Amino acid sequence: MTSFILRRQFTIDFGHCDPAGDVAARRVFEFFDTSTWMLFEAALGVERQHFIATHGILPLVDVRAATRRPVRFGNHVEIASRVAQFRRSSFEVEHRITHCGDLAIEGSETRVWAVKDKDDPTKIHARAIPEDVIARFG
Amino acid sequence: MTSFILRRQFTIDFGHCDPAGDVAARRVFEFFDTSTWMLFEAALGVERQHFIATHGILPLVDVRAATRRPVRFGNHVEIASRVAQFRRSSFEVEHRITHCGDLAIEGSETRVWAVKDKDDPTKIHARAIPEDVIARFG
Amino acid sequence: MTSFILRRQFTIDFGHCDPAGDVAARRVFEFFDTSTWMLFEAALGVERQHFIATHGILPLVDVRAATRRPVRFGNHVEIASRVAQFRRSSFEVEHRITHCGDLAIEGSETRVWAVKDKDDPTKIHARAIPEDVIARFG
Amino acid sequence: MTSFILRRQFTIDFGHCDPAGDVAARRVFEFFDTSTWMLFEAALGVERQHFIATHGILPLVDVRAATRRPVRFGNHVEIASRVAQFRRSSFEVEHRITHCGDLAIEGSETRVWAVKDKDDPTKIHARAIPEDVIARFG
Repeated sequence: MTSFILRRQFTIDFGHCDPAGDVAARRVFEFFDTSTWMLFEAALGVERQHFIATHGILPLVDVRAATRRPVRFGNHVEIASRVAQFRRSSFEVEHRITHCGDLAIEGSETRVWAVKDKDDPTKIHARAIPEDVIARFG
Repeated sequence: MTSFILRRQFTIDFGHCDPAGDVAARRVFEFFDTSTWMLFEAALGVERQHFIATHGILPLVDVRAATRRPVRFGNHVEIASRVAQFRRSSFEVEHRITHCGDLAIEGSETRVWAVKDKDDPTKIHARAIPEDVIARFG
Repeated sequence: MTSFILRRQFTIDFGHCDPAGDVAARRVFEFFDTSTWMLFEAALGVERQHFIATHGILPLVDVRAATRRPVRFGNHVEIASRVAQFRRSSFEVEHRITHCGDLAIEGSETRVWAVKDKDDPTKIHARAIPEDVIARFG
Repeated sequence: MTSFILRRQFTIDFGHCDPAGDVAARRVFEFFDTSTWMLFEAALGVERQHFIATHGILPLVDVRAATRRPVRFGNHVEIASRVAQFRRSSFEVEHRITHCGDLAIEGSETRVWAVKDKDDPTKIHARAIPEDVIARFG
């Protein structure tokens, strides 16, 4: 478990919710995605579009989320994200969304450290995650 | 594992994809959601808006998806969905997305069989899943 | 006004709606986008991913929608789309969503007929729309 | 034209973009929607969920957007929003998205000042916009 944590606060918008008034699953995975990019930007000190050019892309291969308490329109929430584990060419990011200090949603993403094929941009190749990248996450 | 399977075919749209050209995670969970509603409509023979009035709502408490092969813009895919398990007041729906016969994405949703509180519509109560509902899924 | 019309029917999903139960604006523009791609596929007899390789891309520069009657969860709707006007290097697509035969939402998209720059894929160039393309829309 | 302007800055995420790398139309309308809610919260000094309980809802009847310059992944943008016109029971909100000081996207929303029917929550009724509400927008 790495020690570098990215925290951000935001308010649940009308457009984040389904007709039952709950935050929609699709949005939860967008919150995760945004936080993962912000986490890598912060840890590596590079903006996301430059990250892609310099380091490669981070395709998502596995995602999950579990709701502990409902999150609804107008709630002010916090999401805290960190890399739970680095493997050779993949890693897992853990996300926890809290509301008023209580855990509301927790989940994780497994992503691959990959580069696009030079000749065929529709193909990608997994690469070993560089040691100096891992070191930046504490 | 129940035997009633809902299958549908569709084409991956531009709006389903992220800038890397892959289907976005948020969309996968929308495909799952749509198929779960269609599965219940087909098994129970009731339209979705009447289902909510008659039976209750189906809040999602746990979702997950794993990518086996990339799914991209323009691909013609099939999604097959069925209830993997009924528990007392919750159930799990299994979804498999295939492309040209190969498994591309698999995932599951855990949902609760619930009704809205009569006095406070922001609260819901879990209920035992009726036997005759379970029987319709084979 | 061209004569080639693309019609398709679909049901409004839970995920298409906002907490007020109405179809969300963002979804209306996705319905438009999907129909425009299907219209070009049908008129030109080419699949969307091949269209991009063969003809170019169709960036959206102007969109609008107006609601005449609310469209809600579970409604079975039809969307009819056609090119309202071809200009030199842009065109306008008109979309009409009906429910039970009544006009519910109408809107339009203005798109450019464009190709990506060979050296810098982040740049695009507008091109005159070929006569034989226009002819296919009647 | 009222004088109260809501400005906010944000970065274009991966999930905001389509496979061409441009911000998707659906997202632009979400940016508008979020800013309109924030504008009303700021001008009236009330949180969005209380606004709905106290004042009513703001159904969207007409939206439009025009792109002047492409907005892409990683761009830091600002959106400035204000009420362009109050009519008896509807109003128009004008939105301008700039990137590095240049206008990139401009658009507008027309919304109705409405309340839900007490007996049938699927019906709404337009109401005259209160003078003291209008006064808060300068």
